[in-house]
Amino acid sequence: MRVSQLLIPTLREVPAEAEVISHQLLLRAGFIRKAAAGVYTFLPLAWRVIRKIEQIVREEMDRQGGQEIMMPIIQPAELWQESGRWDVYGPELFRLKDRHGRDFCLGPTHEEIITSLVRGEVRSYRQLPLLLYQIQNKYRDERRPRFGLMRGREFIMKDLYSFDRDEAGLDVSYGKMYEAYTRVFQRCGLKFRPVEADSGAIGGNDTHEFMVLAESGEALVVFCPGDACGYAANVERAAATPPGDTGIDEEPRPAEQVHTPGIHTVEQVTAYLGVDARRLIKTLLYRTEKGTVAVLVRGDREVNEIKLQKALDVLSLELADAPAVERISGARVGYAGPVGLTGVKLVADPEVMGLVNAVAGANRDDTHLINVNPGRDFIPDLVVDVRLVRAGDPCPHCGTPLQEARGIEVGQIFKLGDKYSRALGATYLDENGQNHPVIMGCYGIGITRTMAAAIEQNHDEDGIIWPVSIAPFHAVVIPVNHKDERHMQMAENVYRDLAGGGVEVVLDDRPERPGVKFKDADLIGYPLRITIGNQTVETGAVEVRRRATRETGLVPRDRLVGHVRQILFES
Amino acid sequence: MRVSQLLIPTLREVPAEAEVISHQLLLRAGFIRKAAAGVYTFLPLAWRVIRKIEQIVREEMDRQGGQEIMMPIIQPAELWQESGRWDVYGPELFRLKDRHGRDFCLGPTHEEIITSLVRGEVRSYRQLPLLLYQIQNKYRDERRPRFGLMRGREFIMKDLYSFDRDEAGLDVSYGKMYEAYTRVFQRCGLKFRPVEADSGAIGGNDTHEFMVLAESGEALVVFCPGDACGYAANVERAAATPPGDTGIDEEPRPAEQVHTPGIHTVEQVTAYLGVDARRLIKTLLYRTEKGTVAVLVRGDREVNEIKLQKALDVLSLELADAPAVERISGARVGYAGPVGLTGVKLVADPEVMGLVNAVAGANRDDTHLINVNPGRDFIPDLVVDVRLVRAGDPCPHCGTPLQEARGIEVGQIFKLGDKYSRALGATYLDENGQNHPVIMGCYGIGITRTMAAAIEQNHDEDGIIWPVSIAPFHAVVIPVNHKDERHMQMAENVYRDLAGGGVEVVLDDRPERPGVKFKDADLIGYPLRITIGNQTVETGAVEVRRRATRETGLVPRDRLVGHVRQILFES
Repeated sequence: MRVSQLLIPTLREVPAEAEVISHQLLLRAGFIRKAAAGVYTFLPLAWRVIRKIEQIVREEMDRQGGQEIMMPIIQPAELWQESGRWDVYGPELFRLKDRHGRDFCLGPTHEEIITSLVRGEVRSYRQLPLLLYQIQNKYRDERRPRFGLMRGREFIMKDLYSFDRDEAGLDVSYGKMYEAYTRVFQRCGLKFRPVEADSGAIGGNDTHEFMVLAESGEALVVFCPGDACGYAANVERAAATPPGDTGIDEEPRPAEQVHTPGIHTVEQVTAYLGVDARRLIKTLLYRTEKGTVAVLVRGDREVNEIKLQKALDVLSLELADAPAVERISGARVGYAGPVGLTGVKLVADPEVMGLVNAVAGANRDDTHLINVNPGRDFIPDLVVDVRLVRAGDPCPHCGTPLQEARGIEVGQIFKLGDKYSRALGATYLDENGQNHPVIMGCYGIGITRTMAAAIEQNHDEDGIIWPVSIAPFHAVVIPVNHKDERHMQMAENVYRDLAGGGVEVVLDDRPERPGVKFKDADLIGYPLRITIGNQTVETGAVEVRRRATRETGLVPRDRLVGHVRQILFES
Repeated sequence: MRVSQLLIPTLREVPAEAEVISHQLLLRAGFIRKAAAGVYTFLPLAWRVIRKIEQIVREEMDRQGGQEIMMPIIQPAELWQESGRWDVYGPELFRLKDRHGRDFCLGPTHEEIITSLVRGEVRSYRQLPLLLYQIQNKYRDERRPRFGLMRGREFIMKDLYSFDRDEAGLDVSYGKMYEAYTRVFQRCGLKFRPVEADSGAIGGNDTHEFMVLAESGEALVVFCPGDACGYAANVERAAATPPGDTGIDEEPRPAEQVHTPGIHTVEQVTAYLGVDARRLIKTLLYRTEKGTVAVLVRGDREVNEIKLQKALDVLSLELADAPAVERISGARVGYAGPVGLTGVKLVADPEVMGLVNAVAGANRDDTHLINVNPGRDFIPDLVVDVRLVRAGDPCPHCGTPLQEARGIEVGQIFKLGDKYSRALGATYLDENGQNHPVIMGCYGIGITRTMAAAIEQNHDEDGIIWPVSIAPFHAVVIPVNHKDERHMQMAENVYRDLAGGGVEVVLDDRPERPGVKFKDADLIGYPLRITIGNQTVETGAVEVRRRATRETGLVPRDRLVGHVRQILFES
């Protein structure tokens, strides 16, 4: 392909609307253009990347016995009413009516359609297991679409659904997908981690997220650096190790009020009273649809609201505002504490219960209590792990101090069990003629999100650095002087040789200065840049530069194809 | 692949809702299932066929310099308001609102989106020509979705848009697409014809439809059998040859009323009066939004309503009902005629004007006029070609009698000109710094419709007969007796050899009787069926049967792969 004939509208300026680097670079390098908020057109280079990712995904799904199908994007409301999700899905579901007034939605996911299909076609245990998948546009009407392809309203997903006769079968299917996902992201050339995750609203039990590691990632994960262990979890889900010996060897003393004027943050209290933050009890008030809750964690800890929400089994959870705090605690914000607090549910993290002679708010302005002893001075309604696990905490499996990383969720695998098959009546007959619901799993990969995540992980100040396997083209050939017939002819020959040698190559034949071409090449992120100049014409030496390392070398003309193939396909 | 592990839910019964053969066979052979009216899930076999058709289309678009992109399915209303189509498109456009109340539609076509893209990215003549395409779901909210994939509400199309600096450039792009479409349908193994067509509501001038020939086709085409000529047209559009010498050598006689009691059809009048139908003037009254029109064609001709509508430049056109006819003509239906008819626009086909001493209705019950002479007895407001061309009419290019065929429209190519580029302001600067609108063409192929049309053209009473290039698999290997270990082992070996030899093959390893497997093989339409039975075990002879011709032959085991490859890939 010749660059002069490709639609690659690169931009010099950083577009104002792009908040994250992948969005900026996808716009600047001419990969995407916005059609509406959260809705994009994929230009030729982006589409090549997407098709490569899709093909890797397809091959790995097929390898595990997945069968590719294509379900509709417009889904009739009836099925969503059967599953019960029509009413609960909320404003993220794009809804529409057809000309006869019948309700439809644009599929954000396909549990209903596929379960209805399987209900109609699967009758016997002989037809199981079954792994069906598709690669398709999905829709989510985000309140605030942002970050380019990271949080769009129209995006491409691979979704696979597994159907098994029992939980043991589901374990096998889940294992296959875990392996497939691992291979997919390896083949995409990405650094990633599968982590234990929270199953959220989709239901089900076991679930893993596949995180592409990047400093800009929205998600925080903790992982065990121990070679043998392998524990990794989204902090949303990571379980805290039960507290061991606190190391506090004191007799409980009588609780006592102390005057702490204007002293209300953890930092202020520890400094003012000269105590360690680990001896403080931090009290946070949350409003939920089941009433207000006071949550206690150690002064050096943060509350994990995902775990808290799950422990309380509530749909809404938000910090109480200042007037509510004052009304409930009887004091300004910063002085709430568990002792004598009434009218709220009291939830304590286990670590709090191990404290002796602790410090807490006194529910009185400018006042704290010292020598607070849990169990003696207050008794929680619920003791449950609600704290955020952080780096340095012991691994729950092996005790090694955990490490932290940031990641971008590009895939998630779920065990659904019989939630949808029961709701929609998808059953099979076993060997004895007994009817059972099929046991399901669902498994998603964000294709367009993977493209964005690849950029978040692989870029520098000059542009994108594509992994070879998903690069739009492997190499660009640049003649230094487009007015020099010898440069152009040599470039043309090199281009043809490389293309003939199985290299996906473009020839930058535009009548532009070399600086413009070099800048575009770096911005677009071709893994290799091959430059043809006077040197090549005179000595036959071709300059080959690796985008990732910026290493530049001279290669004899007659060994070029082999050299390039070696760099691309054998390293 | 093993049939036992593939989702191919064949049906023995013909589904009641399927009116056309492709719909019946797609359901029966386990290719598709309905999700809602006009909305289908494509099961594994259908998806393989679709992906093969897509790949052929993609390769031919790329060969002509097309660049693949992907535009959004959800399109903002603003662009449709700019082009003026938001208000005129009617109820076939699926419309929806996002959570902020903004209007969107599901794209039936992408002129607005692509023109807006090009408006933003193309500035100079140097960036032209540009051919951009996508392969994507399209939406049309049909009032009565029917015929399975022939007229669905969600379907897959390839749409390419060309951008040129002038009409000469458009001619080149149009020619490229004409060639590409010809190659696509050839490679799909289909009998087809490109025909001149009507451009309808999309606008523009030149347009061709690509028709897959099938007796069940909705469209009627006429074509010239002359080797050198090649004329072919949709009858909707086919121009009638201007009438030559009528062969009537008579002096005009005075018009005269004759009593024709109860005689009102062409057949009755010709029999009763003993005249040839070619001497009759048939008068038809149409209502339009511009008033009532009387249309005159010869007694042996039919009115082409598409041509009439275009000639009148009206949006609505329907035959007047009996009360209206009586009110306007003053007589019962069957006695209207041009002489003395007032209050309507009179439109005559040129053939009518050549008649001498013709017969027409007298606008009086049970009465006709004889010796009617156009020009003397009535003067039309408009003389224009409005008759339907039929087999036997002379080719407008070479005069050879035309032949007729029925077809299914699977592709259409259009010259759009500057309709959308002017509306949306997509312009370029020429060498002299002058601004011009880009000149556009648009080119569609119905991918899912092509699959259905292939079946309409290629089937028999037992099922589908896939052309090799788009068959879901090339061959099925059937062991006759699944309980005979030797059959199963031999089948397994043959299956592996064929797969290793580049043949897309399935092994029917199901514990079913051979009759069931043979019936399924015919129904699904694998081009080759390879049967392994006692004979194979004893003599090494493998039975190879061609689905299309039902020819069966025995092939020595060791020459099987070469033989099969030869049939599939070299014939």
